[in-house]
Formats: sequence, C-alpha cells, structure tokens
Amino acid sequence: MADKIVLHGMGSPNVIKVVMMLEECGLDYELRHVAVFAQEQFDPAFLALNPLGKVPVLEDPQLGVPLAESGAILHWLAEREGRFLPSGQPERAEVMQWLMVQMANYGPMLGQFTHFNLVPAGSQPYAHARYGAIAERLNQVLDARLEGREWLAGDAYSIADIATQPWAWYVERHGFDPAAFPRLVAWRERIAQRPAVQRALARAEDAFSQPAEQTRKAASDADLDRFFGRSEKVPQTDYSIVRNM
Amino acid sequence: MADKIVLHGMGSPNVIKVVMMLEECGLDYELRHVAVFAQEQFDPAFLALNPLGKVPVLEDPQLGVPLAESGAILHWLAEREGRFLPSGQPERAEVMQWLMVQMANYGPMLGQFTHFNLVPAGSQPYAHARYGAIAERLNQVLDARLEGREWLAGDAYSIADIATQPWAWYVERHGFDPAAFPRLVAWRERIAQRPAVQRALARAEDAFSQPAEQTRKAASDADLDRFFGRSEKVPQTDYSIVRNM
Repeated sequence: MADKIVLHGMGSPNVIKVVMMLEECGLDYELRHVAVFAQEQFDPAFLALNPLGKVPVLEDPQLGVPLAESGAILHWLAEREGRFLPSGQPERAEVMQWLMVQMANYGPMLGQFTHFNLVPAGSQPYAHARYGAIAERLNQVLDARLEGREWLAGDAYSIADIATQPWAWYVERHGFDPAAFPRLVAWRERIAQRPAVQRALARAEDAFSQPAEQTRKAASDADLDRFFGRSEKVPQTDYSIVRNM
Repeated sequence: MADKIVLHGMGSPNVIKVVMMLEECGLDYELRHVAVFAQEQFDPAFLALNPLGKVPVLEDPQLGVPLAESGAILHWLAEREGRFLPSGQPERAEVMQWLMVQMANYGPMLGQFTHFNLVPAGSQPYAHARYGAIAERLNQVLDARLEGREWLAGDAYSIADIATQPWAWYVERHGFDPAAFPRLVAWRERIAQRPAVQRALARAEDAFSQPAEQTRKAASDADLDRFFGRSEKVPQTDYSIVRNM
C-alpha cells in the first residue's frame, strides 16, 4: 500500500462523492483512473482490491486495507477526521438514514434508469417507464425533504449531502424538468458553490476525463456488455449511443 | 412515540434483518404490521415516519425520532448496544463495506430480479436476463468471499452478516442451484441455527404472515401497481401470479 491515500475511480457519482469528501477534509491524496470501459475493474489486481469489481476503492495507509463501497468510505473518512457525521443523536442516526437512502435507493435506481436510457430507444418501454417513475418519485421525496431545511439531515452539511449531491445532476440528464424540484436543485447548486467541491471536480476532471474518453471510444461490444453488467445470457444491444456520447 | 421499541414492517428481508438484530441484542420490542399490499405505506401517518413509504421503520424512545432504512437501523442499534459492529479498525470499516454491499447491491439488485420474476413469463426477457446475471454474480462474489472465512467481515458475526443473510434465501427462490454457492449456503444455514434468528423468524411469522396474506389476496391492480413502484406511466401487468403465490 502506498504511503498516502490513493483513490481508484473514474468520473461517476460514487467516485466524485469521495473526491468531494477528501477535499472537504483537506486530505492529501492521489487519484488513479480505472479503465472501466476496458474491463480493468475485472483484472485480478483490481478484484484483489474489491471483489465486486466496482469503483471507488480507497487505499488509506491509516486504515491498512483497501476499502470499497462509497458509503463505507465516507463513513470511514468521517470517523477518521471527526467531520461530517455528527456524534450526537438523533442527528447521527438521521445522517446515516439519508446516506442509506442514497446508497440503497437514489443511486441504484437512478443507475437502472441510466441503463435503460442507454439501450436502443423504445426497445424496453416497460423497464424504461418503471425506472423513470421510481427516479421521479425519489427526486420528489428529496425535494420535499429539503423544504425548510438547509441539509438532508441534522443541522449541518454531512456525508448524506456529500453522497447524494453528485446524483442530483441526473435530474436534467434523465430528462426531468428541474423546475419540478426547486429545493433539490437549489441545494445541489449551493453545494456546487463550495470551494472544496469545485476543487474536487477539477481534480476529477484532470485525472479521469481524458483516459475515460479514450477507453470508452475504443471499447468493444464485449467490453461494454461487461461494463453494463451483462453476460452471454443477455440479449445483445446496439452500443452506438455509448460510443458517440 | 411509544415507551418501548416498535418496529413497523412486514415479512421482507429488510425487516427480518432488524428483527434478527433486536433478538440478538435481547431487546424488548413490538412488531406492527404495515399492510403494504393495501398501500398503508403511502398513508400520511406512515409517510410521516418515512417519506420514502418503505418498511422497516424503527421507533425507539432512546433515539426519539423514527428511523428508516434497515442499514441505518442496524448501525444505530449496533452503536446503542455496543454489539455486532467492531470499534477497532480495520474490522469496523470492513463491516461497513459489506453492510453497504448488501444495502447498495445485493438487496436492490435481487429486488429487481424478483420484480422481473413476477411479471408475465417471457414478457421482459432483456430485463429478466440482466438482473438474473447480476444476481448470479453477486451470489458468486459472496460465495467466494466466504471461502476460508466464517463471517463476511472481521472475525465475528456482525451487522454485515445480519443484513445479508435474509437475502440469501433468494438463491433457490430465484431458481439458482444452491450447490453452485456452497459456502454462501453453509453460512446462511449456520446463521439460521442461531437461537436469536429462530426467535426472530417466529416473531415475524406470528406478527406478519396472516395480515400480509389477507391484504395481498385482497389487493386491487392499482394497489399492486403502487406496491411494485409503478405509476400510471407504466404499462399494465397481469398480477395473477402475485395473488396466487
């Protein structure tokens, strides 16, 4: 393990949230690109870091073992630094609840909707409508939660906000009208103005954008099948939309 | 709020894991059935407990606020009781990682596969194959993780095991051969033998089985649409399989 913090990732919300946390805590770290479109996450060297074959993975010499799952990484860094996770109750439990809302609901379900936006238009109307309806409802829940509230949980900016904010950019990417979720969008923009968040996005752009674009454009159909969690059992898909995005 | 712990739920894995934890900790609690097939989770009274409209919700007078998300409830009870979540590192972070694997991957993705097993056979071959492949791979990852290991993380039974074990019953329900995941199945059966787990299942059966069956059989198509996360935008489904199960 290196002698400073190394974060393995690419430009996805689950990675960006950890970069945001590292910047908010003022920690010294290095970003390493994982070429997910070239299946690097399934290389034995990466699977030794995380058997799920998913980014992000944090290597922190203070912890001594590689740590996967963005929610667990945020929890570790919050306890390491004593920041962004209150020690008092009920604030602490509420932050954990809203962190779990992101980890177990907002992230996975928006991820499914993204997937069904990338298959050929009209080819999967049932699944597209299903995940669109779930994504819309989760945006509504978060928007309502932020009524009269500055942060998702407790009285302060926390790992619940850090975990959720990068996913809130999908409102427009998923074709929803941002005016339908005014409190969610205002909260998202307020967080985006934080200097640590701006530094995080610049660092991520610098480390991930160019290599990710190169590997995405060079990916074979088999690479993309695996990236999208498919196997030989899953019907083939036209990936031109992915290569041209 | 009542003067003792109340858990709102029904017989789903995310509820059962909390009942298991309550029994493991030897806590006094009451189970209250939420008639999810009759949309009780969308009643204003329930949405005041959890705006996502999902079970479980724990009301614990020691916390003072209702707490949702099974992973957050396990984390709260573990810290309240000082059990099943190590205080030392790296064991603590590893337990949180594998708790998140369940919360963000194994639970949500097995839930999607369950959904696509309940739509009319053959009507959604792409989504059925997609989630089947993901479920199979997650079962493989857990099975490999348990090679030479008694528990998912650290040296002891933890909230990672408690969270994951009720989901492992889906191996057979999803049509997989349990012989393909021998370590996962052995770990599942070892946990099932624990007296606290047997007490938990008996309590859950007693509190939830009969009312759940009644409301499921009486549910209208609109009730089931909403239970399955659908909206008026989602194409209609034949629900006879749900009513007759």
